[in-house]
Amino acid sequence: MSAGAVGYAKENAGRFLEELKTLLRIPSVSTTPEHKGDVEKAAEWVAAELRRIGMEHVEVIRAAEGHPLVYADWLKAAGKPTVLCYAHFDVQPPDPLDEWVSPPFEPTERNGNLYARGAVDDKGQLWSQVKALEALMKKDGKLPINVRVIYEGEEEVGGERIAAFVRDHPERLKADFALISDTEMFAPELPTLCVGLRGMIYTELEVRGAKTDLHSGMYGGAAPNPFVALAQIIAGLKDREGKISIPGFYDDVKAPSAEELAAWKKLPFDEEEYREKEVGASKLVGEKGYSAIERTWARPTLDVHGIVGGFIGAGAKTVIPAKATAKVSMRLVPDMTPEKSFRQYKEYVEKIKPEGVTVEVRLIHSGEAIVIGTDNPYVKAATKALKKVWGKDTVFIRSGGSIPIVGDFERFLKIPSVMMGFGLPDDGLHAPNEKFHIANFHRGIESLIEFFDEAGSL
Amino acid sequence: MSAGAVGYAKENAGRFLEELKTLLRIPSVSTTPEHKGDVEKAAEWVAAELRRIGMEHVEVIRAAEGHPLVYADWLKAAGKPTVLCYAHFDVQPPDPLDEWVSPPFEPTERNGNLYARGAVDDKGQLWSQVKALEALMKKDGKLPINVRVIYEGEEEVGGERIAAFVRDHPERLKADFALISDTEMFAPELPTLCVGLRGMIYTELEVRGAKTDLHSGMYGGAAPNPFVALAQIIAGLKDREGKISIPGFYDDVKAPSAEELAAWKKLPFDEEEYREKEVGASKLVGEKGYSAIERTWARPTLDVHGIVGGFIGAGAKTVIPAKATAKVSMRLVPDMTPEKSFRQYKEYVEKIKPEGVTVEVRLIHSGEAIVIGTDNPYVKAATKALKKVWGKDTVFIRSGGSIPIVGDFERFLKIPSVMMGFGLPDDGLHAPNEKFHIANFHRGIESLIEFFDEAGSL
Repeated sequence: MSAGAVGYAKENAGRFLEELKTLLRIPSVSTTPEHKGDVEKAAEWVAAELRRIGMEHVEVIRAAEGHPLVYADWLKAAGKPTVLCYAHFDVQPPDPLDEWVSPPFEPTERNGNLYARGAVDDKGQLWSQVKALEALMKKDGKLPINVRVIYEGEEEVGGERIAAFVRDHPERLKADFALISDTEMFAPELPTLCVGLRGMIYTELEVRGAKTDLHSGMYGGAAPNPFVALAQIIAGLKDREGKISIPGFYDDVKAPSAEELAAWKKLPFDEEEYREKEVGASKLVGEKGYSAIERTWARPTLDVHGIVGGFIGAGAKTVIPAKATAKVSMRLVPDMTPEKSFRQYKEYVEKIKPEGVTVEVRLIHSGEAIVIGTDNPYVKAATKALKKVWGKDTVFIRSGGSIPIVGDFERFLKIPSVMMGFGLPDDGLHAPNEKFHIANFHRGIESLIEFFDEAGSL
Repeated sequence: MSAGAVGYAKENAGRFLEELKTLLRIPSVSTTPEHKGDVEKAAEWVAAELRRIGMEHVEVIRAAEGHPLVYADWLKAAGKPTVLCYAHFDVQPPDPLDEWVSPPFEPTERNGNLYARGAVDDKGQLWSQVKALEALMKKDGKLPINVRVIYEGEEEVGGERIAAFVRDHPERLKADFALISDTEMFAPELPTLCVGLRGMIYTELEVRGAKTDLHSGMYGGAAPNPFVALAQIIAGLKDREGKISIPGFYDDVKAPSAEELAAWKKLPFDEEEYREKEVGASKLVGEKGYSAIERTWARPTLDVHGIVGGFIGAGAKTVIPAKATAKVSMRLVPDMTPEKSFRQYKEYVEKIKPEGVTVEVRLIHSGEAIVIGTDNPYVKAATKALKKVWGKDTVFIRSGGSIPIVGDFERFLKIPSVMMGFGLPDDGLHAPNEKFHIANFHRGIESLIEFFDEAGSL
């Protein structure tokens, strides 16, 4: 059965790619209000395509606020399991714009890759799911498994709507397992399942000094400087080795099992090559005594993403700004919780803030860390499917990123997730010149066809 | 003679103010390239007005780069001294725009004040000079003193052009003393001469980590974060008490004389009131053991004005930026030099920068600190003039700000400067809602008329 569908996918590969480009041309940036209409447009477009390939009960679900969800199902495979397919059609902002070789919303093929914002994160992977379903449906007139689809439009801004929907309407998403298409392969040609994700808390630190902007000549030496205060706070949150200084922050950190650590050591990973080719920095940073893999997958971290306020034009402005706001996030690992970690952070910031300023600590969004077991039948079906397409045994990895919905599926639907993705480590997620390796797009579709088939035989 | 001119100024007070509004409507922001034409327009407008009131040899002087100077003279007072009048017609950027009660380039009268960007810094004060000259010229058909005028259009960006002009053409500016109209009164109704200025070095610290922006989930714990690095560097430059940590930075600091310190103690200054009303912060900051006046006038300081880079939009973007650039300035006092201070700073930044990042330390502009003697005849003539208009003895203060041209006049023209200004401490220089007290504008004109008269009698 899958052979026919795979053949169909191969025959229609060119069209599938062109359709993906159409989706990529919609600048569905969920973080900035001016693109709200574009996120809506992407939702409508995806819904129409789901309808076109034969999915049923297709619906764009809107709440009073935020961006829409897209739901669809096909539940006619009597006696078979049900898969809940998840992906997202919103994207990160494209800035800094001037670093893109080709414009972010004009998908461009170069060197076997498709360049565009959202190419791999996550429109390309969403489209792999839709095309796998289409191939099965067109070739066989039916699906080998019951399918529900839930796609969201605000993954990049915390995914409040889908979290609420999962919590409030678990019956509408009833399934045996979820398929999450939003992860990457550990290395080219190496079939990979992600079985662990870091959680996160994304915060803002707003520091206020004087009541208004002041001249730094007149007032320098008397007026508090919110940028200097933020520098002192940030420098106080993390030591020079990369260890977070917040009291109690590491209390609930659960170390990976000896077996997991041993498997990670066997992965084809050269830290020096990773430093030079992928990161491109003079030295990797982070806590002493842990490998880069451990630090990015199994240790909490703290990063600053930008500081709003003050003078950032060309040239010089001699101002002591009245306020400055830092965007600071922390990645969490099992068994830390966002609630406790945020409380510890907030209390510590208030303790270490310098005199003369006030600081407001705001939580923007958060998500739980998660680890999935590798012994469930759906993970096994996935490894079987991947072996067929890639000819190799699957490696189990974690990701340093956060996919909060996996925790919600576990908590409210009581189902495990299979995180099968076809991104590559150098795809440039969230960065300029994001890409999707075109061969991986096509083999991803084939892998999903095989997986639906395998899981349908359980 | 001056009585007639003062009468003329009073009769024409309304027109003088309306003309100032016309000048204030030109958004001659020198720091941003898009306003280059407006700085040019302001230069042409001021030159035309100087011509109109009877000044001679009026010329807009342009160099290959930068903004123009305006020169004019009237040298027919045989046997009398020559004054070189200085002011500037460029202004600071108006941002943050949303904090202005009335638009920055629509001058608006409220509560006896004129609100606009540049109202007091420095168009209002420039205009006081022009109107004093007009009053004398119109009433008497001549001036009581020889006058050269040199106005610049890039004081807010370091004044390179005027510095080069003074250095290269000292003969064109030959004078006995300079009159600088760019300072403030210590308190309302208190005639003030400024006899000391801090110098400055304005720098950029550009920190680079990874070769491109990276996802903070994937790379957090391995990739260096330029914002965290900048925070560590900035926190290392200044301790929590406000003392600059750069080795040797205080070596050349010359303490004010015991006499000067005693005079400062007698000034009508309440630190608590200054903190609450003028600064509006919960606490003043700065080096222990020095009063706020000493800290802002006679001690070096370090401030951060903004940090360019990263994500500063609304919401969340989980990025580790490839680079971040902090705008950092230091105010210097006698006998520190910009060259030595910058070298010490640069070496120290390179020493304390964390591993994994590179840092480029750039000097944007600089100026020498200066102290003027109070015993020269022009300062004495000024105190006499001020007594006539304000009925009080002049107080001698310093300013924490920088007017590099005063050092250039001293070095290349070998002349002292009289810094007589009519701004008030709460005028909001460089901040939203900058204002000029309208009564001070008019009494400033009268004071300048009396001063030209007194200095012409020397």
